[in-house]
Amino acid sequence: MQKPLILIANDDGAYSKGLATVINMLKPYGDLFVCVPEQGQSGQSQAITFTRTLQVKKLKDEPGLRFYVTDGTPTDSVKLAFNKLLDRKPDFLVSGINHGSNSSISAYYSGTVGAVLEGCFHEIPSIAFSLLTHLEDADFVAAEKYARRLFEWVLSLEDKSDVCLNVNIPYLPENEIKGIKLCRQTIGKWQEEFLEQEVDGEIRYLMTGSFVNFEDGAEDTDEWALKNGYIAVVPLSRDSTNHDKLKKLKDVSIF
Amino acid sequence: MQKPLILIANDDGAYSKGLATVINMLKPYGDLFVCVPEQGQSGQSQAITFTRTLQVKKLKDEPGLRFYVTDGTPTDSVKLAFNKLLDRKPDFLVSGINHGSNSSISAYYSGTVGAVLEGCFHEIPSIAFSLLTHLEDADFVAAEKYARRLFEWVLSLEDKSDVCLNVNIPYLPENEIKGIKLCRQTIGKWQEEFLEQEVDGEIRYLMTGSFVNFEDGAEDTDEWALKNGYIAVVPLSRDSTNHDKLKKLKDVSIF
Repeated sequence: MQKPLILIANDDGAYSKGLATVINMLKPYGDLFVCVPEQGQSGQSQAITFTRTLQVKKLKDEPGLRFYVTDGTPTDSVKLAFNKLLDRKPDFLVSGINHGSNSSISAYYSGTVGAVLEGCFHEIPSIAFSLLTHLEDADFVAAEKYARRLFEWVLSLEDKSDVCLNVNIPYLPENEIKGIKLCRQTIGKWQEEFLEQEVDGEIRYLMTGSFVNFEDGAEDTDEWALKNGYIAVVPLSRDSTNHDKLKKLKDVSIF
Repeated sequence: MQKPLILIANDDGAYSKGLATVINMLKPYGDLFVCVPEQGQSGQSQAITFTRTLQVKKLKDEPGLRFYVTDGTPTDSVKLAFNKLLDRKPDFLVSGINHGSNSSISAYYSGTVGAVLEGCFHEIPSIAFSLLTHLEDADFVAAEKYARRLFEWVLSLEDKSDVCLNVNIPYLPENEIKGIKLCRQTIGKWQEEFLEQEVDGEIRYLMTGSFVNFEDGAEDTDEWALKNGYIAVVPLSRDSTNHDKLKKLKDVSIF
């Protein structure tokens, strides 16, 4: 029997500690195929590149590990893997481990999560992992253990259809993590503050911001789980229709 | 009473015919505030820029029309408008009219739709319009009429909460458009074909592709509507949780 083929994506680039962690973690489970942007591409969402050509470089080709980098976005890289570089459809896609949170609506802006949605569009079980720290040299020991446990849980699922998971891990020592919670995505927004900086006599704007939780205290949300020491697992949909609203609008439609 | 304030976004840039169309169409309904990427930014999804500063330039400041351009993405531009440039919260956000389809999962990759989701996060009624042609000099006469009718319909809605619409308009003469249909988003994927091009002795890859409809013939989908001469209106959700899957996974959870 063929070993499972696991496609690995990320948005922090080829040399991030989170990527090294996920490669190390997944080695026992199958043949790994890494295809990521060579440089960091945070905040790229599901951006795609079709107005210029993309570069692909092979970094490694060892038994059990093929490793490619591109100069595209995370989604470009996954599309290149699926449609050009891989000789068969992968069995799983794993993205991350991202340096920084992708909970609540940050999932929308995230290249890590964007890559996972591409896996879901291709109908393979796909998981995004993110650790709640931006430290380049973060301690991934606890994150790796829990990510492994979650991956084994996915392996064990009888029904692997529509497995498209956004996993966020609090940055806590292992003994302070309270467990894993299946959650829904928190509704909220980012309240940006653009810092003004003068560059060559011109005012330019640097995006910073803080998250505003519209559902503070809702115990079934990912924000609540993370705030309370749990790992948050949100199943994502590839259908962005608001079905409730669709029904309501049909009732008042004038067409 | 203050006139409604309408924020206008797009991803085709400041000089696109679709933007000129939407400005002309919306002038009778309120004060317009345009904030868009100066150059085209198709396929930018909800990408955001926080690793460099952003430029903002004022193009116009006339009664009823303020017009700014940025060197950021469509979502950057909307965030700049909300958080830096506008003196009050807008009453509506309209994005487009995009040159090219944003139906089915193309909505995910689209900067036009990305901008609209940002409006939804800020809880204002938001509409993305796209016309199914990439022609720069497309004929927008029919599209403008129908877009106006849809905007007036939104104005007339008693309950404007969660109005977050993705509207695609077939590129047909007005008398061949059969009407407007409220739809759900089609499930499908893009099957990419990367064209190989030699640049300076190196093989590079150009993304092209074709859409694969997983639900061909489903009459309640946007793809069906467009194929059959209807304008497709899909209400989008700002909650990307797969609630059905969440329930199922809770039943088999080992945590």
